[in-house]
Amino acid sequence: MELSELATRTGSRILLVVIDGLGGMADDRHGTELEDASTPHLDHLAAEGVTGLLEPVGPGITPGSGPGHLALFGYDPVRFLLGRGALGAAGLGVPLHPGDVAARGNLCTLDAAGAIVDRRAGRISDEEGRRVAARLNQEVAGAEFHHEKGHRILVVFRADGTPGGLDPRIADTDPQATGVPPLDPRPLDPAAEPTAALVAATLRDVSRVLADEPAANGLVLRGFDTQRALPSFRERTGLRAAAVAVYPMYRGIASLLGFDVLGPPADLPEQVRLLEKHREDAEFFFVHVKDADAAGEDGDRAAKVAAIERVDEAIPDLIAALEPGVVAVTGDHATPSQMAAHSWHPVPVLVHGPRCGRDDVDRFGERWCHAGGLGIRPSTDLLPILMANAGHLSKFGA
Amino acid sequence: MELSELATRTGSRILLVVIDGLGGMADDRHGTELEDASTPHLDHLAAEGVTGLLEPVGPGITPGSGPGHLALFGYDPVRFLLGRGALGAAGLGVPLHPGDVAARGNLCTLDAAGAIVDRRAGRISDEEGRRVAARLNQEVAGAEFHHEKGHRILVVFRADGTPGGLDPRIADTDPQATGVPPLDPRPLDPAAEPTAALVAATLRDVSRVLADEPAANGLVLRGFDTQRALPSFRERTGLRAAAVAVYPMYRGIASLLGFDVLGPPADLPEQVRLLEKHREDAEFFFVHVKDADAAGEDGDRAAKVAAIERVDEAIPDLIAALEPGVVAVTGDHATPSQMAAHSWHPVPVLVHGPRCGRDDVDRFGERWCHAGGLGIRPSTDLLPILMANAGHLSKFGA
Repeated sequence: MELSELATRTGSRILLVVIDGLGGMADDRHGTELEDASTPHLDHLAAEGVTGLLEPVGPGITPGSGPGHLALFGYDPVRFLLGRGALGAAGLGVPLHPGDVAARGNLCTLDAAGAIVDRRAGRISDEEGRRVAARLNQEVAGAEFHHEKGHRILVVFRADGTPGGLDPRIADTDPQATGVPPLDPRPLDPAAEPTAALVAATLRDVSRVLADEPAANGLVLRGFDTQRALPSFRERTGLRAAAVAVYPMYRGIASLLGFDVLGPPADLPEQVRLLEKHREDAEFFFVHVKDADAAGEDGDRAAKVAAIERVDEAIPDLIAALEPGVVAVTGDHATPSQMAAHSWHPVPVLVHGPRCGRDDVDRFGERWCHAGGLGIRPSTDLLPILMANAGHLSKFGA
Repeated sequence: MELSELATRTGSRILLVVIDGLGGMADDRHGTELEDASTPHLDHLAAEGVTGLLEPVGPGITPGSGPGHLALFGYDPVRFLLGRGALGAAGLGVPLHPGDVAARGNLCTLDAAGAIVDRRAGRISDEEGRRVAARLNQEVAGAEFHHEKGHRILVVFRADGTPGGLDPRIADTDPQATGVPPLDPRPLDPAAEPTAALVAATLRDVSRVLADEPAANGLVLRGFDTQRALPSFRERTGLRAAAVAVYPMYRGIASLLGFDVLGPPADLPEQVRLLEKHREDAEFFFVHVKDADAAGEDGDRAAKVAAIERVDEAIPDLIAALEPGVVAVTGDHATPSQMAAHSWHPVPVLVHGPRCGRDDVDRFGERWCHAGGLGIRPSTDLLPILMANAGHLSKFGA
């Protein structure tokens, strides 16, 4: 059954606040960051609402940002897997056409023998990264180089004139280690051999051009991907959706699904203003806040607690701006600060609205949500629950 | 997605202790056997770890030993169904070749009219069972008879010379009741008719030979099965696995999946010694303890409680011997002593390790595990959770 078969347009507005990397991991010293944060507004929503835990991809599976968000939007994240290249292109607003292939490029530092000695090219500045990308665009013919941030660039190989397009089944050239040289762009399928040859030739040109660079004298690629046709959120749910996100990648994911991408806002107060301004323009509003994940990735527990508390403080404003019928707060995955990385741990969720029911949970946090009324379930379950709560799903069967 | 796509070999050792038939059923007189047992070591692991409940096959489905274990090893127990015959052959180390068919045989006592009066042939001794099996091997041409234990024998029909092999789609001849005669070996598919005829002819010979036996004068068959090609555990997970089990059937299941089968040990202390000796030889260690299930099957509540307490006492030694990174304790199914049989009730599970997170559960038992951080979920979820906790799974998607 497709949700679209039951979708109506008669319901109320839904606000989904995604606190990136919200989930944590309690240990013998601390609770999770959310458990230990002071979150009176989230606790109030949890007390009046229902809570639970979400698994984005599956038990034990650590999700990337793409799968984590697709699952929250109701898309099976295994079936609709997006590569880093396609996500990056979407985030930068670089159009990919059928047959084009994109990859994440990391500028790095190579030693005289060609081995990687710094995988981030000495953490070069945005300005330096932009300069190197511009130089590559001028001096290398085989690809486009779009600067993302610091040492990270998006590399796009255009299909122009290639019958049947390019083939993304190319192994990463990034060994994700130092002390070894970049890998060859090996075809993972015989059909990808011509594309692999094009990538290899382009990378030879890149090496020649970067040879005299002081820091960024190497480039490794990973996550080769092409544009996938994703069914739009509107088509699947009947709902108009809007995204209010500061970071390009999350605007990009929303854009791939046909969301109206508002802004871009610079910070949470601007996100609040955009919600207020556009509250009549959609039924489903996705608000993305990045800081908790960034702090978790840095292994900075205190910063992650503080980031969560900042979202908590903004909750009344977000609700006042949108006046939604249903509010949900959750994360796209866990980023425990002890691991300084994404993890597989289930992510707490709360749903608040006049029809959500009640459970005995009155604080928002993993160890309380265990006993919540939503149980522990796949993240893809959330969207139909929100649609039902907002009155957007009709009865199934007679 | 297959786990093998994300598998790494860089993690720590996993110890999975399976207390056979662990799950129980509380009623108005008692908690479950586990709830009422004194289990300080398991309680300590539960307090420091996360807990939950597992359903081996599906809601309301009572699992046999094969499905219960396959699910714990991450194999969909419906897709990879093993018949009792194939399990028994694996347990005895009797090779089955493609086209051979094996079945579990139970020696029984028939009355003068041919009706079953004792389904276990008066619980004949191992010595008696061996003698009767040897006699059948000498005097019946159509099959091999391998003694298992007591009244239980494995019956193997060899494909030798049969074009296309034999067909296991034969109905059980065991009516699983007394007062009725054995059933005919009815073909469940027209293609199985020749095999059914061979089985029927063999059983007529068996009846003739056993007619003068004092107790074991009948034989009923169930679980006709042939050798299935199972993908190896190593292939599916990237992990080397080792099994430390006293009972042949569980060594057999592990062997079918390509585990290293250690020993055989005679008892729990020998299992501990084998773990210590081989701790560098694998990443995944399966320790099987049978007694709780046997006591449950006997309807002996006190014996099941005592069996669980003996495993609890051995927990520190098991952990000291292996020094695992991650410990899990659970069962393959429930065997409530009130039912004196396997049941569908969910089975408690605990997972302990530095990255397992925490919940508020500090005792190991069904009624506390309900509120545990793992929730209630299929047993097949356990393996990826253990792999993630031990650091054996990489991130999914960008």
